[in-house]
Amino acid sequence: MGDPFNKIAILGRREDPRVAGPVDLLVTHLTKAGVEVVDDTEIEGVDLVIAIGGDGTMLYAGSRVRDYDIPLLGINRGRLGFLADVTPAEMLSSVDHILAGEYTVEARLLLDGRLDRAAGENISGTAFNDIVLQRHDTGRMVDFEASVAGQFVNTHSGDGIIVATPTGSTAYALSCGGPIVEPKLDAVVIVPICPHTLTDRPLVIDANQAITIRLLERDESGASVSIDGHSIGAIAPGDTLTVTASEKRIRLIHPPGYDFYGILRSKLLWGRDSRMRTFGPAD
Amino acid sequence: MGDPFNKIAILGRREDPRVAGPVDLLVTHLTKAGVEVVDDTEIEGVDLVIAIGGDGTMLYAGSRVRDYDIPLLGINRGRLGFLADVTPAEMLSSVDHILAGEYTVEARLLLDGRLDRAAGENISGTAFNDIVLQRHDTGRMVDFEASVAGQFVNTHSGDGIIVATPTGSTAYALSCGGPIVEPKLDAVVIVPICPHTLTDRPLVIDANQAITIRLLERDESGASVSIDGHSIGAIAPGDTLTVTASEKRIRLIHPPGYDFYGILRSKLLWGRDSRMRTFGPAD
Amino acid sequence: MGDPFNKIAILGRREDPRVAGPVDLLVTHLTKAGVEVVDDTEIEGVDLVIAIGGDGTMLYAGSRVRDYDIPLLGINRGRLGFLADVTPAEMLSSVDHILAGEYTVEARLLLDGRLDRAAGENISGTAFNDIVLQRHDTGRMVDFEASVAGQFVNTHSGDGIIVATPTGSTAYALSCGGPIVEPKLDAVVIVPICPHTLTDRPLVIDANQAITIRLLERDESGASVSIDGHSIGAIAPGDTLTVTASEKRIRLIHPPGYDFYGILRSKLLWGRDSRMRTFGPAD
Amino acid sequence: MGDPFNKIAILGRREDPRVAGPVDLLVTHLTKAGVEVVDDTEIEGVDLVIAIGGDGTMLYAGSRVRDYDIPLLGINRGRLGFLADVTPAEMLSSVDHILAGEYTVEARLLLDGRLDRAAGENISGTAFNDIVLQRHDTGRMVDFEASVAGQFVNTHSGDGIIVATPTGSTAYALSCGGPIVEPKLDAVVIVPICPHTLTDRPLVIDANQAITIRLLERDESGASVSIDGHSIGAIAPGDTLTVTASEKRIRLIHPPGYDFYGILRSKLLWGRDSRMRTFGPAD
Repeated sequence: MGDPFNKIAILGRREDPRVAGPVDLLVTHLTKAGVEVVDDTEIEGVDLVIAIGGDGTMLYAGSRVRDYDIPLLGINRGRLGFLADVTPAEMLSSVDHILAGEYTVEARLLLDGRLDRAAGENISGTAFNDIVLQRHDTGRMVDFEASVAGQFVNTHSGDGIIVATPTGSTAYALSCGGPIVEPKLDAVVIVPICPHTLTDRPLVIDANQAITIRLLERDESGASVSIDGHSIGAIAPGDTLTVTASEKRIRLIHPPGYDFYGILRSKLLWGRDSRMRTFGPAD
Repeated sequence: MGDPFNKIAILGRREDPRVAGPVDLLVTHLTKAGVEVVDDTEIEGVDLVIAIGGDGTMLYAGSRVRDYDIPLLGINRGRLGFLADVTPAEMLSSVDHILAGEYTVEARLLLDGRLDRAAGENISGTAFNDIVLQRHDTGRMVDFEASVAGQFVNTHSGDGIIVATPTGSTAYALSCGGPIVEPKLDAVVIVPICPHTLTDRPLVIDANQAITIRLLERDESGASVSIDGHSIGAIAPGDTLTVTASEKRIRLIHPPGYDFYGILRSKLLWGRDSRMRTFGPAD
Repeated sequence: MGDPFNKIAILGRREDPRVAGPVDLLVTHLTKAGVEVVDDTEIEGVDLVIAIGGDGTMLYAGSRVRDYDIPLLGINRGRLGFLADVTPAEMLSSVDHILAGEYTVEARLLLDGRLDRAAGENISGTAFNDIVLQRHDTGRMVDFEASVAGQFVNTHSGDGIIVATPTGSTAYALSCGGPIVEPKLDAVVIVPICPHTLTDRPLVIDANQAITIRLLERDESGASVSIDGHSIGAIAPGDTLTVTASEKRIRLIHPPGYDFYGILRSKLLWGRDSRMRTFGPAD
Repeated sequence: MGDPFNKIAILGRREDPRVAGPVDLLVTHLTKAGVEVVDDTEIEGVDLVIAIGGDGTMLYAGSRVRDYDIPLLGINRGRLGFLADVTPAEMLSSVDHILAGEYTVEARLLLDGRLDRAAGENISGTAFNDIVLQRHDTGRMVDFEASVAGQFVNTHSGDGIIVATPTGSTAYALSCGGPIVEPKLDAVVIVPICPHTLTDRPLVIDANQAITIRLLERDESGASVSIDGHSIGAIAPGDTLTVTASEKRIRLIHPPGYDFYGILRSKLLWGRDSRMRTFGPAD
């Protein structure tokens, strides 16, 4: 199952003691196993990146590996993560499995966003989770229109709009009423944020089409665009935001037993709601 | 703070060992304290009913005490309940406080429902949680219209409608998108169930007005009415369901330290969601 | 673009005058154009079925054509339908385009549902919109568990669950909080109906996997299964409902200019909400 | 029914021709009827303010009349408004009714907001619709905690929180999932904006209690407070936002036949959704 992992980079915020411990353990373990271990500053040419931290660290790690098509394994720092799906307790045995070739690879969809300013310049970036257009001053709705594959979809008014990957469907998009999308589905979710029109609902489309969003002329409203939570700049009427499926993917490595639904159950506390469940006289 | 509790009835499903234990403990404790303890079969004339169980038991206990205006104290059987808000561990000390006159009384709103059949008969009942009109065969929406204080509100299509007390706002109504209503607010929530019209939203009104609901003529659809989860019968076009605030209330007794929001936090697992919370590169 | 449409069946409820008029017009027009027109009772062997009516008629027409892989064109009876997307006014010119080979074909996903009873028998059917498991008596939640491709997803409690095609995503599933899914996406939406657990959210998955749903043992609850709104029978603990993508598809014929988003805008009244839209001092 | 309206101020943006026409008509009509008509710059001492415009104009008018307890009548400029509930066509006859003493008065709840900065200064204002705390840079959630009547409610993470009057319940709060609250109910709605915790739901409370909101310490997040859509400034950890029911009310004047639910039906397009409504084979 693929080439062996002879050279591995380790990535994590070592100033966090919950990270430093596992990193040390892992370096020792990998070195003993004959693997060349390098720092994450020299990522090019490694066979695997192991990131230790939470899902935020995984987003950062993803932005590092995607240009080199290096597989990525996530070790979480405590609580199970959507992306960092190996617990510290399982870390060493999971790594042994993976070194022995026992693992699965999952190619996660990324989105390329490009903001074309009316003045001619453009800013672009790649998202693991989502590309978000959002008003940035209080009080005023923004009005914008969206098209898919050149077809006009709708004029939206409200706080903004999210274009999310399946990975991002469980992040901000979920808080705005979007559905959970299975990671292997090549789909994109478009979720309006607090839409003025109550029938303006989340839309799931095939990922292989360009989505374009344009702000409408309106006094006093201001909006900006962010990619995975980082602002790339303001968007003004006349500017165009274009979102397409990236040619790059993040190749996530999972040890045997990876269970997407198990992670969902854990993260969303399914089965642990304790509201009154019988409506009847006895329980 | 009110008359002393000299005679107390205890109510609970003793076949459940999680109930039988606390019941025995409580009987012994109360008897020692000089209280006359009776079975829940002879509720009339007691000064207090103590119910041990879950919120379902509390619904039943409520239906027992409301005609005699007897105060009600709820001891839960394990997990904290919305209504049974004393834990087994706190039971004896809470009861001591209450016997010593240290408690608060909360008068919970009840709803009277009356189904007037076109043929002339009527069926009525009183709800602690909610009165629900719901389609009872699959596949077909029901159409019905609602009025408040004689004013037409809306024609609804869908799976049905819930009229809930503040107490019921955290039960079925919450699952259908209704808001949480503070118990002390004299308000009623009207929540459409899976409405066809997406802008058909929960409505909160002053409790002191009659709500009337009538089924519209339509082939093949069937609906029934239930009160606190118990069907009182089918409703047909021409019948009228009328819901009004009851003259009766349930007087809940709380030991010192009762905290409605603390119970909400516990039941809704607030603060325990563990989805990705940083959108940024590190966490 | 495919073989010519020499023999066409027309389907519609002629007792409805809004249907009878267009049917007559169409029969005359097609006959003049040299097309053999037959009744919908003899559908086998025709090159095209034209259904005149609302989306309900289209569901029925779909159930008729799917076994013979006959393309289907929908003429609506007044208001634009999701499936009957040609207006009476455009009918004749749209038909002329289609006879001249100017049309697009859209293969809509269908779902096969099979209910395996513990006793050994099974009942099956095919859905254009959705397969729904729903409690059928009032007052009690049903508990059931769902698996996807053999992996356990979740134990759900509530009113039931919907498994919908993209076509069905704008029907009942939308009323239960599901997203809109683009028809061309090979995906299935799983939507819990009024779930007890508030974090139990709609899930969108790749269509090429079996979904299995099993009722859990619980007193007094009853549930049944329906396909496109027709009950196929009760489901009991021990029974299994299995849903898979059908090998059959409905081939919808669209005249030039078909616009899925235009239909959405029209049906969901996008752009026509008229609530207060400035939050500020002047508008 | 109250003192006669001998002196009336007219308020509206006369640069809008849809306003200028009705204003002229109204001035002529009132003058003929012997009423002294003044400009809205000299509001003190008038018996009634008539505002012509949309709901935004009504918000502004409300901020003008509330300090003098002057009744307010709203004439809309075209489409029916929640607050400007008289159409131009009915304007003159409605005014005649009102001059003849045929009208109802509705005292709408207002909210006072006060932002106490850690440094000692404070900023305050009064809301007709809502007081909103919202993050003002993209990408980062804000964390804050809310208390009601001194009792801790919850720690919220997300885009912010809305405290709305019944009037405001159909504005921004409705877009964020809040319920519709009947104007005469003395209640306040607290609605989390895109909350991280999916069980963090809208809460309806008795209006006569102070709500306090405090930002938690967290890197990089920024938030601001707005009242009826106007920012009153940034809020930082250590600052406290306090919201209480105002002692002032807006006294809205309605001509005979005022129908809150009729306005809701019109604004929310109830009864005009046109999605597939039969799930069955024919419609």
